[in-house]
Amino acid sequence: MASKLKTAILGATGYSGLELARLLGRHPRTDAPLLLRRSAETDESTTGLPHSSGNGNGYSPIEPFSWSALEQHGVELLFLATPHSVSRELVPEAVARGLRIVDLSGAWRLKQEQNRAVYGFKDADAQIAAELTERAVYGLPELHADRIPSASLVANPGCYATSVILALAPVLSAGIVDCDHGIISDSKSGVSGAGKEPTARTHFVSVADNFSAYSVFGHRHTGEILEQLALNSCQLIFTPHLLPIPRGILSTIYVYLKREMTADEIHNCFHNFYTGKRWVRIFPASHLPEIQFSVYTNYCDLGFCLAKDGRRLVLVSCLDNLLKGAAGQAVQNMNLMYGWDEAEGLQ
Amino acid sequence: MASKLKTAILGATGYSGLELARLLGRHPRTDAPLLLRRSAETDESTTGLPHSSGNGNGYSPIEPFSWSALEQHGVELLFLATPHSVSRELVPEAVARGLRIVDLSGAWRLKQEQNRAVYGFKDADAQIAAELTERAVYGLPELHADRIPSASLVANPGCYATSVILALAPVLSAGIVDCDHGIISDSKSGVSGAGKEPTARTHFVSVADNFSAYSVFGHRHTGEILEQLALNSCQLIFTPHLLPIPRGILSTIYVYLKREMTADEIHNCFHNFYTGKRWVRIFPASHLPEIQFSVYTNYCDLGFCLAKDGRRLVLVSCLDNLLKGAAGQAVQNMNLMYGWDEAEGLQ
Amino acid sequence: MASKLKTAILGATGYSGLELARLLGRHPRTDAPLLLRRSAETDESTTGLPHSSGNGNGYSPIEPFSWSALEQHGVELLFLATPHSVSRELVPEAVARGLRIVDLSGAWRLKQEQNRAVYGFKDADAQIAAELTERAVYGLPELHADRIPSASLVANPGCYATSVILALAPVLSAGIVDCDHGIISDSKSGVSGAGKEPTARTHFVSVADNFSAYSVFGHRHTGEILEQLALNSCQLIFTPHLLPIPRGILSTIYVYLKREMTADEIHNCFHNFYTGKRWVRIFPASHLPEIQFSVYTNYCDLGFCLAKDGRRLVLVSCLDNLLKGAAGQAVQNMNLMYGWDEAEGLQ
Amino acid sequence: MASKLKTAILGATGYSGLELARLLGRHPRTDAPLLLRRSAETDESTTGLPHSSGNGNGYSPIEPFSWSALEQHGVELLFLATPHSVSRELVPEAVARGLRIVDLSGAWRLKQEQNRAVYGFKDADAQIAAELTERAVYGLPELHADRIPSASLVANPGCYATSVILALAPVLSAGIVDCDHGIISDSKSGVSGAGKEPTARTHFVSVADNFSAYSVFGHRHTGEILEQLALNSCQLIFTPHLLPIPRGILSTIYVYLKREMTADEIHNCFHNFYTGKRWVRIFPASHLPEIQFSVYTNYCDLGFCLAKDGRRLVLVSCLDNLLKGAAGQAVQNMNLMYGWDEAEGLQ
Repeated sequence: MASKLKTAILGATGYSGLELARLLGRHPRTDAPLLLRRSAETDESTTGLPHSSGNGNGYSPIEPFSWSALEQHGVELLFLATPHSVSRELVPEAVARGLRIVDLSGAWRLKQEQNRAVYGFKDADAQIAAELTERAVYGLPELHADRIPSASLVANPGCYATSVILALAPVLSAGIVDCDHGIISDSKSGVSGAGKEPTARTHFVSVADNFSAYSVFGHRHTGEILEQLALNSCQLIFTPHLLPIPRGILSTIYVYLKREMTADEIHNCFHNFYTGKRWVRIFPASHLPEIQFSVYTNYCDLGFCLAKDGRRLVLVSCLDNLLKGAAGQAVQNMNLMYGWDEAEGLQ
Repeated sequence: MASKLKTAILGATGYSGLELARLLGRHPRTDAPLLLRRSAETDESTTGLPHSSGNGNGYSPIEPFSWSALEQHGVELLFLATPHSVSRELVPEAVARGLRIVDLSGAWRLKQEQNRAVYGFKDADAQIAAELTERAVYGLPELHADRIPSASLVANPGCYATSVILALAPVLSAGIVDCDHGIISDSKSGVSGAGKEPTARTHFVSVADNFSAYSVFGHRHTGEILEQLALNSCQLIFTPHLLPIPRGILSTIYVYLKREMTADEIHNCFHNFYTGKRWVRIFPASHLPEIQFSVYTNYCDLGFCLAKDGRRLVLVSCLDNLLKGAAGQAVQNMNLMYGWDEAEGLQ
Repeated sequence: MASKLKTAILGATGYSGLELARLLGRHPRTDAPLLLRRSAETDESTTGLPHSSGNGNGYSPIEPFSWSALEQHGVELLFLATPHSVSRELVPEAVARGLRIVDLSGAWRLKQEQNRAVYGFKDADAQIAAELTERAVYGLPELHADRIPSASLVANPGCYATSVILALAPVLSAGIVDCDHGIISDSKSGVSGAGKEPTARTHFVSVADNFSAYSVFGHRHTGEILEQLALNSCQLIFTPHLLPIPRGILSTIYVYLKREMTADEIHNCFHNFYTGKRWVRIFPASHLPEIQFSVYTNYCDLGFCLAKDGRRLVLVSCLDNLLKGAAGQAVQNMNLMYGWDEAEGLQ
Repeated sequence: MASKLKTAILGATGYSGLELARLLGRHPRTDAPLLLRRSAETDESTTGLPHSSGNGNGYSPIEPFSWSALEQHGVELLFLATPHSVSRELVPEAVARGLRIVDLSGAWRLKQEQNRAVYGFKDADAQIAAELTERAVYGLPELHADRIPSASLVANPGCYATSVILALAPVLSAGIVDCDHGIISDSKSGVSGAGKEPTARTHFVSVADNFSAYSVFGHRHTGEILEQLALNSCQLIFTPHLLPIPRGILSTIYVYLKREMTADEIHNCFHNFYTGKRWVRIFPASHLPEIQFSVYTNYCDLGFCLAKDGRRLVLVSCLDNLLKGAAGQAVQNMNLMYGWDEAEGLQ
């Protein structure tokens, strides 16, 4: 049997990194990943991975990051589950060293300057950064399966963005939406999407029995959605909300159609667009997905209701923000990059 | 001191009836309410009110309903926390007997035939039902404080409807909304809004860690919202969702303005409309209410965010579905009906 | 490669049956299980398994139970995820027909008449029932790995019982516990342990933000624990509680030791007892397992704290009530019955 | 009418301080309390009290603490909702200045040196600290109603301690418990008991769907319980657990009786002990309180189950950790200190 791929995860202490470590730990084509942490991370964050333990004593060690550690372990593919600024800083050298990279941060997702502004990147070498920005492939396999296999730098999409883009791509691509009327995505996410950092906002007592909107007209994922769907900023309102659950995203999306249509036409539109796509499930007309159906899976579930007038369409999109919205999609991208079955290690 | 008002609650075993019993039990102007149940209710539902007990032995008895029981206790004001069909059946005789009524069901809220159709009312005497439908006052005190004091039949609004109408009334009344562009209310409710009946849908395991949309393009509260805001059915999409929390509603509402406006103008619009209204709180621009702020209170909290283009407005409305959305509003209506301070018994 | 085992699940609509269907659906040694329902089950319960769907249209059909259906599909191993009375009724014929059985109900777990009384079994043929009761093997692989491989009828343990027995077996077996002093197991379970039937008790609003004890001095699992640990009813208090979470059990168990001991001695006691046992994890002294560590796994996690006096011991045991407490353990039993690796299909 | 009492709360930003501010804000005998913060508290913690706002603009200001501020406002009674070290530091001067104090921290609850050790107090003047320790009255009104009225320094009990002491005091006082057999309190608390500080432990994702024991054999409240019940440390095991709910405590307590008793005898024991006590509710035999019954009230609910042998007793005690376990009890103490009805401002 062929030797297995050597991978490493930098940032294996956060929710996405942890989930990724679990997925790679049982992936049939990869060795157990090398787990790395940035030197800035406190001791507390280095206690390893309780969930992967066997007999209570098998905590995986998380080593400090260094280029020589990567070299020594023969790492070919590096997963970055780091803040975007760290990712922006490390990727140029990683690429120069011949590593392939799947970056889970927002560092390399955006092509347009005005969308990148919200991140405030400070690049050491602006020209190299510009070249890498150009080369980076947006890692949404359902849209870019042609470019991911040969990519050296894959920018893994945001969790909200994945849920919104996968719901809208079929109807926008079919040209049936009146974009100038305005599209609204009212999106709701579980708390793991807000990261592992303890804050007043993520305290149990603040979240439990509560629900709230945030970052209205200003969430960072808006840029990704606009770019991938070729929309302008007047054509979309994206409103995130915080759900009192650990994981899962549901987006309720409102679009107005150019002409009166039937539910069958809409269903066919989705069905045709996603034929052969392993990780998207289309629900029958008027049967809507719920968060529970997709959590702990790599599926993005899509459903819709059409108004009696045939002109107003409500789309509902569900996924697990740590799987299809992060670590699962990263593995899906790896599978494409190495020519393996898209579902390998994800079932 | 004047003698206290005699009240009764029919349906004191449901969530709204229970909450109402608690409120009336400590209201300074009313005697402890007579608690009644329909004969169809099972023994299990008659175990009384655990929360009102003192020394563990003070469960209030819930008596079977009869007209003579009402008479014997000298009841003047009858609260109905019953299914709409029961309310539709009992109200004609109750009014004929000279009782004043606050009905928490949907039986008497709708003036327009096409909106009532979803309830499928079967009236014993169509003419009397039509007259009562006409006389019934929609019990939203912030809109109808002029008509409630003299009403004999007050139709207490639906919980979702209250949250949507109170958010939209100021901007619609000011004539600044492009209604034909379409208004969207993406609303989310805690589980007590679904009633106390145990169903597959309200099972803890179905709701916890989950979130889902339901009754898209078909929820019964839509008619109330349309009538009270003088909208037609093409101008509003109302989408309810089930939140994994016991109580509270948050509505995120999207409107397009006729002209470019400033946040100050919008704030003034709300401020002016609700001046002197005790139970509505207006938040500063871009500061949004959360469910936690209003649960266990009778407040409806309103906030908004305006897009940079000054044309797209996101409203957020929060309330406790059992208080401002049901029992609290019923007490507020009672206060108006008897000329008392609107806040009596609700602080 | 050898042909795969044919299995069937009767009662595939409950939580345990559903979980079992998922596990068998991806087990490398079994074909997709035949899913069956009792004729008494309503249509609503026959809508199949949403989680196993692919592209939203792949709901597995659940067929009505009949002996001929089993024969026709060549079923060798029958899983019963049925009420105990159904299981008590069907097993005699199933055994007579040469089927092997893993029964997830309480029907065949108890050897002693006084413990069986709480179930009120009504056996058609008392003698056959007595013989089967005798032949049935209590399916706790960590205790009975010698007898399970050849068993035709395996009585899969109760979820609470598994958590208590696995925690106590090592210290009782070592003879270090003062049993007559009394052992206390204060156990807490998530709501899926209460079954899928919607009741007032399992309504979201009853469970959320709540916590309660129930069946004090009277829970059915007590008999299993006593029999397996050879205790009498004066030596154990078992108190179940309902946790506001979907799944998981934690038992806090209090024992008094016969002599002063060290934490190392206690740890060795557990370590030695479970050497080579794949699905039990022992935590270091004073490091306690939490429910989150074991849910969605087949592990039973065990930890302990010893008082300074070396005489009082607190044990903490955690597991997922639907996996190690039900369906996972059923698969573990199947693996032993067919001579496969104990972990097959459970990782 | 008599002028109202002037009070102040230092530490009005924590959960207990916030709750206390709300209670005092509507207490008929007190003016709105002066809200104070320690200079060390960050700006973020000074944003005031969202729940007390009216019309969204009425946030109460929280001023920096100073003795002159207290003097200037004519404060007579000072509530300390501060860390124990702050309380230990401030109380000597506060008493010297003639203020009466209700301290919600653990600073002055313990009379015995060995119990105080866990707090590591560093007193500026050891003799004054010793005198104040002696004078401080443990503020459990059901036990010390004779001494609280004249106290200048009331040490408000811990939340866990209140739940355990109130359950055990009647049976211990009656002399029916075999204390040397050992008493076990398996206690469970909601997350607000862990304080408002965001930590890895209080992060929503750590708590939700989880349950865990902590501080086994080492929780600070153990000393209070031992002292108030005159037990020694070998006679009690107290095990706290963290519940995935915002508020509420349930303690399940196991005691062995000296002789066989009946349920009636036990019930009478509780009934007699708490006759005339407004804030304790006794449940009928075998009817157990649940957390939902007492949250948002100042009640401590007590219930029990007796084994058939009449020798083993399970007690269940429930309360709201922020009310009867903290702020509510502080108000109850204030009521006694000023000769008012014990229920004033708490209904």
